[in-house]
Amino acid sequence: MISQIDRLTQKKKPRHDRLLLSIGDDAAAFLPNPGYVLLVSSDALIEGIHFERKWTSARTLGWKSLAVNLSDIAAMGGVPLYVTTTLGLPASITPRFITDFYRGLSELASQFGVTVVGGDTCSSLRDLFIDITVIGQVRPREMLTRSKSKPGDLIFVTGRLGESAIGLDLLRTQSKISLESRYVERHLRPMPRLAVARHIASHRLATSMIDLSDGLSTDLNHICQQSRVGAIIEASSIPLPQLRSRVREWLPKSPLHYALNGGEDYELLFTVSPAKRHLVPATIEGIEVSQIGIVTRRKELFLTQGKQRTRRLSAAGFDHFNSSSLSPH
Amino acid sequence: MISQIDRLTQKKKPRHDRLLLSIGDDAAAFLPNPGYVLLVSSDALIEGIHFERKWTSARTLGWKSLAVNLSDIAAMGGVPLYVTTTLGLPASITPRFITDFYRGLSELASQFGVTVVGGDTCSSLRDLFIDITVIGQVRPREMLTRSKSKPGDLIFVTGRLGESAIGLDLLRTQSKISLESRYVERHLRPMPRLAVARHIASHRLATSMIDLSDGLSTDLNHICQQSRVGAIIEASSIPLPQLRSRVREWLPKSPLHYALNGGEDYELLFTVSPAKRHLVPATIEGIEVSQIGIVTRRKELFLTQGKQRTRRLSAAGFDHFNSSSLSPH
Repeated sequence: MISQIDRLTQKKKPRHDRLLLSIGDDAAAFLPNPGYVLLVSSDALIEGIHFERKWTSARTLGWKSLAVNLSDIAAMGGVPLYVTTTLGLPASITPRFITDFYRGLSELASQFGVTVVGGDTCSSLRDLFIDITVIGQVRPREMLTRSKSKPGDLIFVTGRLGESAIGLDLLRTQSKISLESRYVERHLRPMPRLAVARHIASHRLATSMIDLSDGLSTDLNHICQQSRVGAIIEASSIPLPQLRSRVREWLPKSPLHYALNGGEDYELLFTVSPAKRHLVPATIEGIEVSQIGIVTRRKELFLTQGKQRTRRLSAAGFDHFNSSSLSPH
Repeated sequence: MISQIDRLTQKKKPRHDRLLLSIGDDAAAFLPNPGYVLLVSSDALIEGIHFERKWTSARTLGWKSLAVNLSDIAAMGGVPLYVTTTLGLPASITPRFITDFYRGLSELASQFGVTVVGGDTCSSLRDLFIDITVIGQVRPREMLTRSKSKPGDLIFVTGRLGESAIGLDLLRTQSKISLESRYVERHLRPMPRLAVARHIASHRLATSMIDLSDGLSTDLNHICQQSRVGAIIEASSIPLPQLRSRVREWLPKSPLHYALNGGEDYELLFTVSPAKRHLVPATIEGIEVSQIGIVTRRKELFLTQGKQRTRRLSAAGFDHFNSSSLSPH
C-alpha cells in the first residue's frame, strides 16, 4: 500500500531537490531553504462531521483534504512544500477508494508543487479519518499573522462569501442536486487562494490575514482577538453569492446569513493600513477583492446595514470544539 | 479550549527561541537551525484499533501518543523539536479527559524539550482519533535511515523485546491485572530511546536504524527491503523478557513469539559494520544493547536456533493496512 501511495503521489518530480527522504523511512527528511521561516499546520476531516461519503467522491475528498490545509499556508502568505497524510480507514473503504483519494489529492498537490512525504495509514473501527499536516515556507518579512491589525485599517475579503455553505445546504436538503452545481463544487472542491495570498504577502499589502474557514464573523473575530481590536462591517459591501431565483427559493436562510456565518469559503480576509489602500487592486490573480469594513479601537464587532441600522455581530460561524454537527475548519 | 491547550503545553519556555508563532494562528512558524536536516513524521492512534479507553487513562494516552512519534525521530538519530496534535473527539470525551491527555503528553514533551505548536481539535462521531506530527532535526552526517545496511553488518537491538505485546495480552485477557505491571507499563507508557539513538548517531556507530514498532521480524524486514539485503537472527541472542512464572502461565504464546512478532517495544534495531563492532558498548545510556544477528547478501530472513535448526523468518508483526484488530505503529 505504502509503495502504491508513493507511486500515486510522486509522479512529478518535486521542483526542489532538497527533499532527502520521503515515504518509506521512519521520517521524511528535507533541507530547509536558507532565509525562510517554516510554517506547519494540521487540519483533520472526519466522516460524519466534516463530510459524508455519500456526498463526495474519493477523488474530491482527497482534493478537499489537501485544499483546507494549503489554505492555512496561504493565510500566512506562504508557499506550501510538503505534506504528510494520515488515514484511518474503516473496513468498508476499498483499495480503489484510497487510490482515488490520492489521485484527487495529487491533482491539487501538483498544481502547487507540493510533495507528499509521509504519513500513516491504519485501520479505523467505524469512521473514516483524514488528517493532513502541511509544511510551507515564507520569508520572515512577508509572513502574515492574525495579530497585527491596527485601528483604522481597512478590511478586505477575496471572492464571494457563503457559496460553500449554500452548497452544503443544497447537499443536505436537495436529494437531486447536481454535484456539478457551482455551490456544491465550491463546497466539495475549494480552491486555496495561494496565488492571491502570495501577491498580498510579497507586495506587503496587509497588516493581518486569515483564511475564511469558520465563517466571516468567526474568522474576523479571530483577527480582532489576536490583534486586540474590534471591527465594523458594512453588510452591503460583503460580496454575496449571485443566486439564481430557483436556488434562492430552496434556501432556508438569507445570502447574508451564509456569507457571515457559513464558513468553508477558503477565501482570504485581510486588513490594510489606510496608507496602502490605493495599492489594493480590484482583482488579484483574477479573484475579486472587496473592501467590507474597518478595524476599530473598541474591541467589538458590529454590522451596519445602511446608515440607520447597526447591530452587534456575534461570532456565529464555526467553533470546532463545541460542535456536534457538520463542521468546517 | 485552544487557549487552555496552549496553557497546558506551554508551561515551560522552549529551550530554543526560534519559534516565532505557536498555537493561535493559521500555522505555527519557526526558523530552522542552520546546518540541520529537518525530519517530519506522523503517527495516529485510533480508539478500538490502537487503544481501548478502558485500558488507559487520558494522561497515559497523551504520553503514548507522543512517545510513538518521538520514537520515529529517534530512529533517524534526530532530536525532536515541535509537534502538532490533532484530536477527533466524540461527545463522550469530557474537558477533563482532554486536559489530562495534554498533561500526559506535556510530561513527556518537557523531558525532551519538545513544544506543542499547533494542531486541530474537532468533533468525531463515534471514535476518539489522535494524530500527531513531530518535527525534528539532525545533522546531515548523523542522519540514519533504513537503507544503508551492508552484507556482513552486525545486527543489534536495545532493551528487551516482547514486553509491550505481553502487556497488551495481559490487558486483553486478565481482568484483574494491575495497570502498574511492568509489562502493561511498557505497553501503555513506552519510553522513546532518544538518548540511546543520539549516542548511536553522534558516534556514527550504525549503518541503518529503525525503531521496533511493528515487531522485530517486520521491522528487520523493513531494513532488509530498503537496504536490498537479508538477515540471519540467532534466537538465543534475542533479549527476551524475564517472566515471573505466574505471568508465563497466563501467556498464550512463547516469549520468543512476543519478541519476534509483538511490536510496540519502541526499542531500536540498528546495524553496524564489522569494523565498528568494538565501538558498540554493552549498554548505552543505561539501556542494554544486544547483538542478535548478521546482515546477508541473500535477500531473505532466517532464524537460527542453535546449530541444528534454521527456519525462514516471515514478517509476522504488524502490517498497518491489512489489520483489522488492535495494531501497533
